[in-house]
Amino acid sequence: MKIIDGGVCAAKGFQANGIRCGIRKNKDKRDLSLIMSKVPASCAAVYTTNLVKGAPIAVTKQHISDGKAQAIICNSGNANTCNPNGKEVAVETANLLAEATGIRPEDVVVASTGVIGQPLDITPIAGGIPELAEGLNDNGSELANEGIMTTDTVKKSVAVEFEIGGKTCRIGGIAKGSGMIHPNMATMLVFITSDVAIAPEMLQKALSSDIAETFNMISIDGDTSTNDMVIVLSNGLAENPEIVSEGEDFETFMKALNTVTVHLCRMIAADGEGATKLLECHTTGAKDKETAKAVAKSVICSSLLKAAMFGADANWGRVLCAIGYSGAQVDIEKIDVDFESKAGRINVCKDGKAVDFSEEKAKEILLQDEINILVDLKSGEESSTAWGCDLTYDYVKINGDYRT
Amino acid sequence: MKIIDGGVCAAKGFQANGIRCGIRKNKDKRDLSLIMSKVPASCAAVYTTNLVKGAPIAVTKQHISDGKAQAIICNSGNANTCNPNGKEVAVETANLLAEATGIRPEDVVVASTGVIGQPLDITPIAGGIPELAEGLNDNGSELANEGIMTTDTVKKSVAVEFEIGGKTCRIGGIAKGSGMIHPNMATMLVFITSDVAIAPEMLQKALSSDIAETFNMISIDGDTSTNDMVIVLSNGLAENPEIVSEGEDFETFMKALNTVTVHLCRMIAADGEGATKLLECHTTGAKDKETAKAVAKSVICSSLLKAAMFGADANWGRVLCAIGYSGAQVDIEKIDVDFESKAGRINVCKDGKAVDFSEEKAKEILLQDEINILVDLKSGEESSTAWGCDLTYDYVKINGDYRT
Repeated sequence: MKIIDGGVCAAKGFQANGIRCGIRKNKDKRDLSLIMSKVPASCAAVYTTNLVKGAPIAVTKQHISDGKAQAIICNSGNANTCNPNGKEVAVETANLLAEATGIRPEDVVVASTGVIGQPLDITPIAGGIPELAEGLNDNGSELANEGIMTTDTVKKSVAVEFEIGGKTCRIGGIAKGSGMIHPNMATMLVFITSDVAIAPEMLQKALSSDIAETFNMISIDGDTSTNDMVIVLSNGLAENPEIVSEGEDFETFMKALNTVTVHLCRMIAADGEGATKLLECHTTGAKDKETAKAVAKSVICSSLLKAAMFGADANWGRVLCAIGYSGAQVDIEKIDVDFESKAGRINVCKDGKAVDFSEEKAKEILLQDEINILVDLKSGEESSTAWGCDLTYDYVKINGDYRT
Repeated sequence: MKIIDGGVCAAKGFQANGIRCGIRKNKDKRDLSLIMSKVPASCAAVYTTNLVKGAPIAVTKQHISDGKAQAIICNSGNANTCNPNGKEVAVETANLLAEATGIRPEDVVVASTGVIGQPLDITPIAGGIPELAEGLNDNGSELANEGIMTTDTVKKSVAVEFEIGGKTCRIGGIAKGSGMIHPNMATMLVFITSDVAIAPEMLQKALSSDIAETFNMISIDGDTSTNDMVIVLSNGLAENPEIVSEGEDFETFMKALNTVTVHLCRMIAADGEGATKLLECHTTGAKDKETAKAVAKSVICSSLLKAAMFGADANWGRVLCAIGYSGAQVDIEKIDVDFESKAGRINVCKDGKAVDFSEEKAKEILLQDEINILVDLKSGEESSTAWGCDLTYDYVKINGDYRT
């Protein structure tokens, strides 16, 4: 398997585009994106678990209930959530796009991201759709990526190439997500395209299984958004024998999908609002998977630890504290904690107790921009990884005045 | 019932003191406190639910298992948690205090607060105890209050006077707590003294019932500490007929206790690490108590909302978002949200949807230092209140470099 360029346009038969239609006040930002397959594709999705849901989610759910879709249209700048006219705008967006491109409205996935509770006017979207559709091109992944960004500071994109049944296959994805991100569901917007031939139910199975270990293991700030979705379109143009059951081909597909999702997870966590550091907590020696996950997530979610990591302070007591309130039943007296980065690795806690360590070395390790927090529970064989970021002045700045 | 001065020395027969014994590096800060009753008192306690627990908690639990205690000794600067010698130091502290004051070691409550996982030396404590005990006095509540502070910026103290069975009774309390505070148990250190005659089991009943609506409804940062406890000593010197069952006297006691605890809750939340504002979320119209509490707590815990409040940004979408992921089953389409402060009150969301409101007026309201977030679920009769604070640059600053 190799990492390649091209994002959502890497897979055969996919084009994309992103334009500025005028939803956002900032005139330099694109705010409307389109990803399109030449032919209808198998489609799988996961959505936010928040009871408050954006209007586009209801419309998308209905449209892909047959397991098929052909296009994804997404605006930024307005979440289209808690609006009196939310559903109408989402439906009309799909209709207008279908008209402009000649596909069925039922094959359109609609997504939105931005402020909650602001009326959304269809006018700029309607005005922009012709330009958006006409401009579809093979190198449009970056433009589409720009059009879905909100407080993101970098574009998040990856693609991989691999083989199934002797055929070259590709999966690529783009993502947005920087704040209001917490592992209770599919967090953020992630659009993944693939040219693999795979039945919709197998695609959904692959996605649902994957996100439990990837997107649901990220937290930026503990807030679960109202609009998040992960969508995968797989159009079959790689001409591999269609994957209709588990087996070797399905495993290969799962592995490729996981490469894409883990890559995007790390990019999302590293670009958390205000973040200066990517934090990765790796739990080993857990008696079961649930324990491994609960511990890793609790550590990555601790505001106190996140602030300590910002300050490059090896305050491992906060790691133990977060494990202690994780809800997992662990033997505190067995826990080892290490900090690791490209500057080295240091043991800071052994058997749940303080150990002598060099503060200087610890500081050097924690001043890097990717920090691994290694927790060994020494009570079993299971492991898990969660991703997050440090808590910084800029997180406060961004969110103290996001709307105005 | 009237609010009076005197803190933990307000009730008859209680004295207190606080000194600097040398645990903390900062030479201007007191770090060892003592509260003492002239006679053994009924004692009730609640402790942290964190699996990682400070050594003093185990010792205290054992000492008050007979429902009686006479003194509370507490150090700041070191949590005595995850230390190899933690239990020995806590036991020795109780022994030394008992020796210096002539009470039984089993009547000593031991508490600690500060950094986790640093060895704690008994030497400064042993050296300080004689001075601490000799200096006990009727006006010592403020000194004791100072000795338990860590990142607190204000002393937190209150006392009330009321009558039971024709006798004047008093309850007073001091508290510390600023970070690592989250409503999963008794959060922070709270020491309450009373001269009411009340059986230990009724005292425990009153305390356990009260904290569910008070200390467990505060959150500063979502982190549940390892050392927290709420202790009540009630020595009977008011000479009221002893409270041994529910009834009018018990209700009066509960009401007085609640006045003290709510007061301390508000002070703790307002003095949250880095906070500039006290946030109070009041939920009404809930179908049951659990829903009311879950919604109020979820709102007060949202990092995004806390940052918006810091910026005086009426971003009510974040209130709805937090309600949506609270886990409570609510009808989103019925929710009304108002913001209120001494500058007035404004409706920002009606029936789960945006309403037109004056951003200028909202700003004026949110620029005050006490903000009420009023959530009406319009689905029943139950209500609840939770307390928190805004998320600020200073929270990050304090916690980015707390230990070093």
